[in-house]
Amino acid sequence: MELLKSLEWRYATKKMNGNIVPQEKVDYIIEAARLAPSSSGLQPYQIFVITDKELLTKIQAIAFNQSQITECSHLLVFAAWDGYSLEKIEKVFARTVAERGLPANTMDDYKQRLWGMYEPLSQEWHATHAAKQAYIALGLAMAAAAEQKVDATPMEGFVAPELDKILGLEALGLKSAVILPLGYRDEAHDWLVNLKKVRTPKEVFVTEIK
Amino acid sequence: MELLKSLEWRYATKKMNGNIVPQEKVDYIIEAARLAPSSSGLQPYQIFVITDKELLTKIQAIAFNQSQITECSHLLVFAAWDGYSLEKIEKVFARTVAERGLPANTMDDYKQRLWGMYEPLSQEWHATHAAKQAYIALGLAMAAAAEQKVDATPMEGFVAPELDKILGLEALGLKSAVILPLGYRDEAHDWLVNLKKVRTPKEVFVTEIK
Repeated sequence: MELLKSLEWRYATKKMNGNIVPQEKVDYIIEAARLAPSSSGLQPYQIFVITDKELLTKIQAIAFNQSQITECSHLLVFAAWDGYSLEKIEKVFARTVAERGLPANTMDDYKQRLWGMYEPLSQEWHATHAAKQAYIALGLAMAAAAEQKVDATPMEGFVAPELDKILGLEALGLKSAVILPLGYRDEAHDWLVNLKKVRTPKEVFVTEIK
Repeated sequence: MELLKSLEWRYATKKMNGNIVPQEKVDYIIEAARLAPSSSGLQPYQIFVITDKELLTKIQAIAFNQSQITECSHLLVFAAWDGYSLEKIEKVFARTVAERGLPANTMDDYKQRLWGMYEPLSQEWHATHAAKQAYIALGLAMAAAAEQKVDATPMEGFVAPELDKILGLEALGLKSAVILPLGYRDEAHDWLVNLKKVRTPKEVFVTEIK
């Protein structure tokens, strides 16, 4: 489906019906996130795909009890790096040059410049920067879900440090950034399903400088 | 075009050929950004669309002289709110209830809860949160561009306070978050055009918890 039509179709589903999203659609959505561009190509995030019902109930309890967390088919947790390091950058760049069949030292200058820029910045700056990159992937995952007629509700309403504990993210050098339940709208019981999509009018949203 | 195929086609174009993107395609790309979801539907960002050559040259000078800024057809600047305020939230919510034909006080409780959450947080937290939302719109703009076979190179490599000055953003309560030149790849001269797209392998990117 054309992207704009998909974006018109999607909305932040408030009530899901528990139906299961086929694995190939989940794979498609995750692949869109995996293909997302990121600053210097570092992709400083990972996705956790949760279907374990007990775990979802635990997460719901630290997410303002939002119903979609247990009504969804799959819960995606976007977890971003808690900071950059020379080692992490080296690992990504080594993979890049290897897959491109380039000499091992091809990206060395760039790596040093990049780390020279990141090193003096705070761990908090790093983590925020990594989380922002995850939001690009979130956007593409939502576009893919809508194209596949899968509902998806982006959520920031959870206690991130608690989710980090539940998933053991600290030990992995990650922090939860945003979560995305995937599933299907419960048309009969979702108060939002028939309300008009409202957005900033184009004349306010856009300023042209010619 | 199917989203995954579009995402495979796109890449961070390093050299553009100066060809002009038709207005209807620019409109399409901006509409995808405008339809992007955002936290509480606030859409705390705007887009500046710059084609003025003199202005682009000025921006290039504070953006590490990246060539795409003057080789592109249109430069999109995503500018996010420099902070939340009760007034800004009220304005958005008033539009939402009006467009949905709901009683004026429908969202009053939600508004108070939301502001109660934001008010104690720092201006910096607000601005970062708003910028993150802009990254979702950036993701959708890039997906739309790729679908339209328009090249787009997301860039954080610019001196944001300088760009804010050039565009007079402070007076508008905005801060530049990220920029996106739109144009067409110069296939003969772009060193990146034929290199393999490298991404985190799926088995590292995804963790399933069943």
